[in-house]
Amino acid sequence: MIVDKRLTVRKIEHMAAKAKSSGVKFRPHFKTHHSAEIGEWFRPFGVSSIAVSSVGMAKYFADHNWNDIMVCVPANIREIDELNDLSKNVTLHVLVDSLETMNFLGEKMRSPVKVWIEIDVGYRRTGVPAARTDKISKIAEHVRKYRNLQLAGILTHAGTSYHAKSLSEIRKIYRESVSQMKTVQEFLASAGFPDLEVSVGDTPTCSVMKKFEAPISEIRPGNFVFYDLAQLNLGSCREDEISMTVACPVVSKAPERNEVIIYGGGASLSKEFYTAKRHNVYGVIAQPDGEKGRTKPVKDVYVASISQEHGKIIGPKKFVNDVKIGDVLMVLPVHACQTVLLHKEYQTCEGEIINSYQPSIC
Amino acid sequence: MIVDKRLTVRKIEHMAAKAKSSGVKFRPHFKTHHSAEIGEWFRPFGVSSIAVSSVGMAKYFADHNWNDIMVCVPANIREIDELNDLSKNVTLHVLVDSLETMNFLGEKMRSPVKVWIEIDVGYRRTGVPAARTDKISKIAEHVRKYRNLQLAGILTHAGTSYHAKSLSEIRKIYRESVSQMKTVQEFLASAGFPDLEVSVGDTPTCSVMKKFEAPISEIRPGNFVFYDLAQLNLGSCREDEISMTVACPVVSKAPERNEVIIYGGGASLSKEFYTAKRHNVYGVIAQPDGEKGRTKPVKDVYVASISQEHGKIIGPKKFVNDVKIGDVLMVLPVHACQTVLLHKEYQTCEGEIINSYQPSIC
Repeated sequence: MIVDKRLTVRKIEHMAAKAKSSGVKFRPHFKTHHSAEIGEWFRPFGVSSIAVSSVGMAKYFADHNWNDIMVCVPANIREIDELNDLSKNVTLHVLVDSLETMNFLGEKMRSPVKVWIEIDVGYRRTGVPAARTDKISKIAEHVRKYRNLQLAGILTHAGTSYHAKSLSEIRKIYRESVSQMKTVQEFLASAGFPDLEVSVGDTPTCSVMKKFEAPISEIRPGNFVFYDLAQLNLGSCREDEISMTVACPVVSKAPERNEVIIYGGGASLSKEFYTAKRHNVYGVIAQPDGEKGRTKPVKDVYVASISQEHGKIIGPKKFVNDVKIGDVLMVLPVHACQTVLLHKEYQTCEGEIINSYQPSIC
Repeated sequence: MIVDKRLTVRKIEHMAAKAKSSGVKFRPHFKTHHSAEIGEWFRPFGVSSIAVSSVGMAKYFADHNWNDIMVCVPANIREIDELNDLSKNVTLHVLVDSLETMNFLGEKMRSPVKVWIEIDVGYRRTGVPAARTDKISKIAEHVRKYRNLQLAGILTHAGTSYHAKSLSEIRKIYRESVSQMKTVQEFLASAGFPDLEVSVGDTPTCSVMKKFEAPISEIRPGNFVFYDLAQLNLGSCREDEISMTVACPVVSKAPERNEVIIYGGGASLSKEFYTAKRHNVYGVIAQPDGEKGRTKPVKDVYVASISQEHGKIIGPKKFVNDVKIGDVLMVLPVHACQTVLLHKEYQTCEGEIINSYQPSIC
């Protein structure tokens, strides 16, 4: 994986400035890069609070001097010991969408933890449906029973934005989710829980919206740090904003089929794909774009099929003829988060090696 | 990841016995498990030659006392230094399907390497098409020019077997590929290259065939060590032969939608799926099956959608009602090879932790 540091930092700066101008906290989701080194790139822009996707990753970033960490999946009660260890040393935020988990945490947490009630605004994955104010207020009331639980706010992930067909649909999803969160927040205020924070976060809406108004108090985009073809297709970014590529050597050619085989398959790109003009696309080939130090997609050259170690690239005859065995092709990933999971290291355009978090059994 | 060691060893024993009774070499592909510890499970059955899918993995197994290693993708000439390092210490086998790569290796290899010409028997990925005997013999002739290149044989991966619709289709693919390899072998014998070995290997045909006849001299199955839902659907294995599962805790429930959310998504299962009865299936839930120590799929309970950390399980009302937050569900993976890439460790049913190879930038 090759990461363009300058471009990445520019995007971090831009997102931080946007949050600041709206008066909301910028809590970037670090699961996309999950690298302590890349985490450091956020600090100059005032970032001190982060989101992660596992307790192991929270510990990794706590070990790298992050002190305000949200584990952004419903709390896994089987990791109660690890949660207790973490909450001794950092301001720990957890997500809850059930009475069972809330009561379990209340009984077992030995130091204070910030609790967020996850709200489902239509994605139908996790969270209490926004309309279920009865259940939401019941969970909120239970928090009060426990000394170490502090109700911080309500939180949602408007994941339907990943299936939007247009920018206006992304904006509509954003407005509808904010409106639902506002209703829930007001309901809880009237039920005796005033001043709750409201956290939202998905890269499409955070990228497309220029301003975040009340009641939003926090945004948690993650993928924007790299972007990828899925975000490009959604309209969240331009092609020259994608800052991570996978470098794959050419190991075989079949010019009679207009095909080039790279050493780079599911093991280095992941098997994520999208369908365009009835073709599956597992990656798009990019080339350096002059002096800008950026990569640019090459017209009509894409990874058309994939097995574990091989990627089959289809392209125009001229492209296939010009490519030589041993050349390195840069592949823009379909879904950067999934690609990052398959690697231990990044290399910057300047040649610096950057390590990343490696999960292990808890 | 939980691996059933006893069952895995039984399958290794069975495949080794089948190879022995046919008089062919058993060169298991270690990319599926890529673990030095699991590699040791093969030695009692006389296995001393292995296949791997990268030069880094070859080095890992060389460091764990394997001395006969085939890197089973077309040689990547950019790794010539690593290939030279390896060939000093082990009997190294490389694949070639172009004159360019052959000549490059010939000029740069500083110690002997076994060369296999990869033949395409219809999969249309890598390899010289079997009908292109002109190109095949030209590559074979070039091997003679170089002191350190030793032509060992011809090799194929009949990957079309992964798309077979029935057992009889798998057998047909096997017979057709063997027939093509026989033609190529005889052609090369008549062109002055007698006694070339013939290596075949894909889990579907190696599982389904009871015997491997001449000219086959070597089989290279890999996935059989675990098997998975894709192999089950193909008919390569029975459901009680799948020996690897992913243990995922329940973190949320939506009984009104008959859904259970596990903490286990693309980051631990991979995003591989298949379609059954118009539903995408990303995994199937299994339960312990009495005293056999085996897991058994639970009827109609499957992972219906997936994001990076969440898996959404759909099941009958009774199943959903009985499951509790904090329970651990065992998920049978769709494609074990891709799942393994996402983990650093296995745990055996007896609780032993087993490490695996972790790739890094070369």
